[in-house]
Amino acid sequence: MRFPQIELKLPGWIETILPEPDHVFKDSQERMQLAIKLAGLNVEHKTGGPFGAAVFDNHTGKLIAPGVNLVTHVNCSAAHAEIVAISIAQKVLNTYDLGAEGLPACELATSTEPCAMCLGAIPWSGIRSLVCGSRDEDARKVGFDEGAKPADWTKNLKARGITVQQDILRDDAKAVFEKYRDSGGIIY
Amino acid sequence: MRFPQIELKLPGWIETILPEPDHVFKDSQERMQLAIKLAGLNVEHKTGGPFGAAVFDNHTGKLIAPGVNLVTHVNCSAAHAEIVAISIAQKVLNTYDLGAEGLPACELATSTEPCAMCLGAIPWSGIRSLVCGSRDEDARKVGFDEGAKPADWTKNLKARGITVQQDILRDDAKAVFEKYRDSGGIIY
Repeated sequence: MRFPQIELKLPGWIETILPEPDHVFKDSQERMQLAIKLAGLNVEHKTGGPFGAAVFDNHTGKLIAPGVNLVTHVNCSAAHAEIVAISIAQKVLNTYDLGAEGLPACELATSTEPCAMCLGAIPWSGIRSLVCGSRDEDARKVGFDEGAKPADWTKNLKARGITVQQDILRDDAKAVFEKYRDSGGIIY
Repeated sequence: MRFPQIELKLPGWIETILPEPDHVFKDSQERMQLAIKLAGLNVEHKTGGPFGAAVFDNHTGKLIAPGVNLVTHVNCSAAHAEIVAISIAQKVLNTYDLGAEGLPACELATSTEPCAMCLGAIPWSGIRSLVCGSRDEDARKVGFDEGAKPADWTKNLKARGITVQQDILRDDAKAVFEKYRDSGGIIY
């Protein structure tokens, strides 16, 4: 084939920091803790930008798929943490629609509010609920661009039946940006 | 690894319908013709939704990367034609920023105006110009959802230095939707 295939692979360190597959992340805070941990470790391991996300079975609290930002690591501008977590969850569940009948309702926890691209990706994914840590403005403060999002984006998601929680462990999530800046990470 | 890697691979038929690598797609119309051809053949081969896209070196007119919608084919809701073409172009040029210094200015031709996700992806990609075939409303007429895009999205891109052309071969691009509907394709 003249054109390469795209491969997005999680860094090896992720496996080593996850609890057992049957571990229960019982609420939004515990799920956000994992997303923030992934963001922070992604900075430490220099495997991408300071962003982490994870998809959970909203009913059982089990992790379906983790994600980290892989933009600089795999040279793919679309490889944001949310896109990575959603795409892996879809591969795990063998569907392009996580909201399909018969599947567990899925929750996406993301260490920072989704940028314009990831926000646009959420309705297509079948995710039923979204939990956000830091705000767009926190990301902008360190130089990241979040793109042109509709002002009423949380309302737009809610109108599609997707619940949104903001500011979950926001300070912890913001601290990852400081760590990234101090580490001399690339702002792209 | 407990979690699978994501693989996006172009269908084998694409290789067979492309001209030689040094072929020059001299203007927006010729580039759009390829995007529409990819969309139409994606329907015929049942390898995804009725959408095609391609990234070109805007100066030489050479094709850098083709893309087709692979959502249903690879079970990945983010695998829209634009995301696929951009990601392959980034892999070909070994960069997450197609707009980086020293690289050829890149043009993205897409058979349908970008949905909210793909629109959000464009500024992150480094694409410098966008050429669109059919309109959002054409896609909506057959049941596709384009998402919540800012009303002034072309202006937003232009403010970032990304030029936008609309309605290039729109009727030809619309005809692909009719073909898809008549073929009983999935609307997702």
